[in-house]
Amino acid sequence: MPVNLAAPDSASLLPIEGVRIGVTEAGIRKADRKDLTVVLLDEGCSVSGVFTSNRFCAAPVQICRENLDAAGRVRALLINTGNANAGTGQDGLRRARNTCVALASLLDIQEAQILPFSTGVIMEPLPDERIIAGLPAAIADASPNHWLRAAEGIMTTDTVAKGFSTTTDIGGKQISVTGISKGAGMIRPNMATMLGFIATDACVDQSVLKQLSLRLAQGSFNRITVDGDTSTNDSLVVIASNKAGNVSITDLESPEGQSLQAAMLKVAIQLAQAIVRDGEGATKFITVTVEQGKTEDECCKVAYAIAHSPLVKTAFYASDPNLGRILAAVGYAGIDDLDQAGIDLFLDDVHVATGGGRNPQYQEEDGQRVMKQTEITVRVLLGRGAVSQTVWTCDFSHEYVTINADYRS
Amino acid sequence: MPVNLAAPDSASLLPIEGVRIGVTEAGIRKADRKDLTVVLLDEGCSVSGVFTSNRFCAAPVQICRENLDAAGRVRALLINTGNANAGTGQDGLRRARNTCVALASLLDIQEAQILPFSTGVIMEPLPDERIIAGLPAAIADASPNHWLRAAEGIMTTDTVAKGFSTTTDIGGKQISVTGISKGAGMIRPNMATMLGFIATDACVDQSVLKQLSLRLAQGSFNRITVDGDTSTNDSLVVIASNKAGNVSITDLESPEGQSLQAAMLKVAIQLAQAIVRDGEGATKFITVTVEQGKTEDECCKVAYAIAHSPLVKTAFYASDPNLGRILAAVGYAGIDDLDQAGIDLFLDDVHVATGGGRNPQYQEEDGQRVMKQTEITVRVLLGRGAVSQTVWTCDFSHEYVTINADYRS
Repeated sequence: MPVNLAAPDSASLLPIEGVRIGVTEAGIRKADRKDLTVVLLDEGCSVSGVFTSNRFCAAPVQICRENLDAAGRVRALLINTGNANAGTGQDGLRRARNTCVALASLLDIQEAQILPFSTGVIMEPLPDERIIAGLPAAIADASPNHWLRAAEGIMTTDTVAKGFSTTTDIGGKQISVTGISKGAGMIRPNMATMLGFIATDACVDQSVLKQLSLRLAQGSFNRITVDGDTSTNDSLVVIASNKAGNVSITDLESPEGQSLQAAMLKVAIQLAQAIVRDGEGATKFITVTVEQGKTEDECCKVAYAIAHSPLVKTAFYASDPNLGRILAAVGYAGIDDLDQAGIDLFLDDVHVATGGGRNPQYQEEDGQRVMKQTEITVRVLLGRGAVSQTVWTCDFSHEYVTINADYRS
Repeated sequence: MPVNLAAPDSASLLPIEGVRIGVTEAGIRKADRKDLTVVLLDEGCSVSGVFTSNRFCAAPVQICRENLDAAGRVRALLINTGNANAGTGQDGLRRARNTCVALASLLDIQEAQILPFSTGVIMEPLPDERIIAGLPAAIADASPNHWLRAAEGIMTTDTVAKGFSTTTDIGGKQISVTGISKGAGMIRPNMATMLGFIATDACVDQSVLKQLSLRLAQGSFNRITVDGDTSTNDSLVVIASNKAGNVSITDLESPEGQSLQAAMLKVAIQLAQAIVRDGEGATKFITVTVEQGKTEDECCKVAYAIAHSPLVKTAFYASDPNLGRILAAVGYAGIDDLDQAGIDLFLDDVHVATGGGRNPQYQEEDGQRVMKQTEITVRVLLGRGAVSQTVWTCDFSHEYVTINADYRS
C-alpha cells in the first residue's frame, strides 16, 4: 500500500501538444500486461536527458547518450518493462538497436532519432522480437490523452501509476507540464527514478532545456532513496514541444525561465516523492532535513546515512522511537571533525536530542506520537554552518524482503 | 539460527594466565540475564585497543581512549550489556565514571586503570547504581576458567556465545590465545565487532601490541558487515599477560612476532566471522572477494557495495540467482573509470558474467545450485590491477526486520 498516494485520474494529466503516446501488451515477460510504450514527438521538439551514474549502465542508456549527443532531433521514445537489458554486453546493445531500427522504419525516421528505455530484470537477454512485433499496435494506439496509460505501461514493482500535471503562465501564454515516473526499488541517487518523463509545451531553447533537466534531477530524483541501490537504468527525460506560443526561453535565470523551472520542478518533486511513497514495502514517508551544515555535500552525507540505515528504517516501520539509531547514523556519516556536542535532533516538532545526548525535556511518549504518523520529518541541526539539504525516503518493512526475495518468481 | 556456528565448549576456551573473569546478573535491563562482566588483570599485563570511528562514540569509548593514553597500566575491564551509554552526553560520562570509581575502590586500584564497555540500547541513561550494586558479585565470581561465561555475559541480540582459542609455539614456549566477541546488528567497518576481547599469555612489548591490535582489527573485524550501520560502541581490546616465559617480542616482523600475529589473527577472524554467522536474521554466510583491483581501497569499495546491497542480500536469502544485482552493485561502487567490459563474476566455481554481460556458457541451474548453499563465495575480477580484498557478510531476511522492529520490546 503506497503512503498517501493514489493513481491519478486520466483527466488530471494534461495533454502536451506535439506529444502522443501509445501503449500495448507485447508479452515481454508476462502476458496481459501493458509493457510496451511509444512516445511520438512532432518535429521541432527539444529533448534533454539525465542518466544513471552506474558504471554498469544498461544498453539502452548507452544508446540514449549517443543519440542525444548526435545532431538528429529526437522524434520517438521506446520504453519496455519486464527486462532491463543491463549486464548484457554487446548482445544487449545489438538487441536494443534492433528495436530502434524497427521503430524507425515504421515511423520513417532515422534510428538515431529514437531513445530506447528498458526496465525490469537485469542480465537476461532482451526479447527484441516480441518488442518489434508489438510496435505496430503501440503506434496505432498513439494519442495525446494517453499519459495515464503510459504511467501504467512503465510500472514494474510499482503498485500505483505515477503522474502529475501543472500549468503556469509564461509571457501571457498558459503552458502545461505533465510527467510520469516509475520505480519502487533499486532507488538511490544519483538518478533514482529508474524512469521519469516530463514534457511541456513551452518554447525553450535546447541549451536551456539541458541546464533545466540537470536542475530538475538534482532537486527531485537525486534527493530520494528507497534501498540505496543505484539502478543501471535510471533515466530522466525532459521534453519541450515548443508549441505554446511563448517567446522561446533562452535564459533560465529570466523571469520566464524561473516560472518554467518552478512549474517543472513542482511536477518533478511530486514524481520523485511518489516513487518513495510507493517504495517497496513502504508504510511511511520520511523527510530528512539536515540544517546548519558547512557544505551541501556534508548535509547530504548525513541525510543519506540516516535515510539508508536499515536500523533507522526498521525503527520507523515499528513506530519505535529508538532514536539513538539516528544519532549513530549521524556519527558515522563521514564528517571527520563533527562535534557531537553541537548537534540537535528533532522529530517533527519534538526536540529529541541536544548537546550530544537526550534533551532533558524529551518525553518518550512525544517521540512515540510522531513515530506513529505516516508522514514524519527528521530534522538534524549540525551547528556548524548555514547550508541545508533535504532527502526523502521510506521505512523498511517485512514486505520489502518479501518483494525482493520473490521478484523473479 | 546462526549459520554453521555453535557455542563453544567451556573446556575449549583456554585460560590465560594472569586473566580472571567474573560474571553476574545485575538486572541492568532485564532480570535473570548475565549482563555484567569484569575482567581482572594481574599486574604487568599489556593492553591495547581499537575503537569505533563513529563521531557519536559512546561515553565508555571516550573513557577507554583516555585511560589507554594515560600512563597507568590497565588492571580491569568492566563490561555491561542492556545499555550502550551512547548519545548520553555529559551525563553518560558521569555515570560511566561512577562505575569505574566503584570498581577501583573495590579492587584498590586507580580509576584510570579501568576500561569500561557498554552495549545495548542507545540514548537511554545508564543505570549506574545497578551496575555498582552488581560489582561485588561479579568480582566474587572471578576465575581463569570463565571465558564462556563472559562470552555469554556480553551477548545482546546474539543467539550464541562466541569464543575461540588456539595455541602456538614461540621460542620453544607454548603460548595460548583466547578471544570472545559479541554483536549481531549495527555491524560494519570500521570496527564492526561491537565488542571483542582477545588475550594471550605471550610476552609482548607494549608498542608491538598496539601495532598488532591495529592489524588484527584490519584483517578481521574491519572486514565484516551485517547491515552497514557502524556502532557507537565498537571496541576491540587485545591483552598480553606476559606470563608465558618467552623472550618478550619487540619486533612484529620477527619470526616470533609473525607466529604470534598468525595465532591471534586466526582467533580474530573466527570471532569476526562468528558475528556474521550470527548476523541478525542471517541464513547464509557470504564471502565477497574482489581481485585484480588497482588499490585496496577500490577493492573494498566494490566488496562493500555488494555486501551492503539490500537487493543482493535479499536475493541470497531467496536463493534466487538474480545475479545482475551484483553487477549493478559493482557499477555503483564508486570507481569512476571502471570499464564494465573488463569484469568477470564468479559464484563459487560458476563463471556467471564476463565482458560486461552474461557468460554465454552460464546456465541458470548452476547459479541456482550455488545459491542454495549456506556458504557462498562471490568473486569479482576487476581486470585492472593485482590487489585483492575479502569481506564477509550474510543475507537479509524477514527475521532481520522482525528483530530490529521489535528490539526494545
